[in-house]
Amino acid sequence: AILAGIRAMLTVGPLSGKHIIVTSGPTHEAIDPVRYIANRSSGAQGSAIAAALRDLGASVSFVTGPASVPPPQGVTVIRVETAAQMAAAVAAALPADAAVMAAAVADWRVANASDSKMKKDGTGQAPALQFIENPDILRDTSASKQRPKLVIGFAAETDDVLSHAAAKLARKGCDWIVANDVSPATGIMGGAENAVTILSASGAEVWPRLPKDEVARRLAARIAEALA
Amino acid sequence: AILAGIRAMLTVGPLSGKHIIVTSGPTHEAIDPVRYIANRSSGAQGSAIAAALRDLGASVSFVTGPASVPPPQGVTVIRVETAAQMAAAVAAALPADAAVMAAAVADWRVANASDSKMKKDGTGQAPALQFIENPDILRDTSASKQRPKLVIGFAAETDDVLSHAAAKLARKGCDWIVANDVSPATGIMGGAENAVTILSASGAEVWPRLPKDEVARRLAARIAEALA
Repeated sequence: AILAGIRAMLTVGPLSGKHIIVTSGPTHEAIDPVRYIANRSSGAQGSAIAAALRDLGASVSFVTGPASVPPPQGVTVIRVETAAQMAAAVAAALPADAAVMAAAVADWRVANASDSKMKKDGTGQAPALQFIENPDILRDTSASKQRPKLVIGFAAETDDVLSHAAAKLARKGCDWIVANDVSPATGIMGGAENAVTILSASGAEVWPRLPKDEVARRLAARIAEALA
Repeated sequence: AILAGIRAMLTVGPLSGKHIIVTSGPTHEAIDPVRYIANRSSGAQGSAIAAALRDLGASVSFVTGPASVPPPQGVTVIRVETAAQMAAAVAAALPADAAVMAAAVADWRVANASDSKMKKDGTGQAPALQFIENPDILRDTSASKQRPKLVIGFAAETDDVLSHAAAKLARKGCDWIVANDVSPATGIMGGAENAVTILSASGAEVWPRLPKDEVARRLAARIAEALA
């Protein structure tokens, strides 16, 4: 944290003096001590965004689930596993000038998670799992008394991408939604490229398919404009 | 595969000329295109066992789920994601002199997995997931017409470790069970050490807590004795 702060102070850029929260990676929700439910997310896009914001001088709080891509240098890394832990870490990182919610957070967790390993009982029936909704980090941050000036959500969809993303923008109370199509056929999930559309109150902007690093640089530049 | 074969031919040891299947890592069972159920397994113990068998001259078919520890050099790597794929890969790798089933295979998969991302429907209710049992790779290999001379299963338990492992030995028809306690308090899961008990028809042998590499070397030496 200290090193990140020093680096941010040393980097003079359009985001110098700004504190930005970035969430990244999947969350893991325990079923029992050996099993869990996860979202597919390498954390590549979130790490790239945090690095791009750092390069523009921002002080970045990087709240990451168990991602396969390592966090960038020069940011404050807060490691979490579950959606509930991520929600608490984001709340604790406020106030911030902007929040970029790139993590693939589990919508649900297992209500009846077990402290011991669930066993086959010989009937061929699996134990019944009950699910409860996780905290909605994007909505809660958008509604916070300490709401950042700019709150950006992500929508990873497999069909009707734009209509789902537009509905999400309205429902969550955030400023922008970065929407992308994660259908297996696109190769985006786990890949090096991304094809996003930026939705805001002023409309939708379709970006070409670009390396995730370049998507991150363009997004960071837009954030700097919005906070200027 | 060719390189692995050449290395195995070049390594003269007690397992020269023997073909051994090792399974390792977790399996991932899809819920929808962005969510899955997983077992906690780094693949560290399985990779160490494959390396130790290779070092004794064995030709190793290494069937691995999405593990965080990379596969060793000099073995034939077959990458799978689901339990059903792992079962098929093991069957395809037969015949073999021995099979070491170190993977943490999901007992169940989602019967009603969706081709598109499941959405919150506004009721706060999660979609109902129905589960069906996966193929039992250890039992099926033990009952195969091409049964390896030596079939070794693993039992990762959190309580009543030895009684669960003894029951598993009887139920699966394998020769040995390598049992360990993966309760979070032990730090074994994801850690560098393991504390195992080897169960067979001739009884139980408790090994001291050892680095996973050393557990692997001792187990490989035992396998060489049993196949001699």
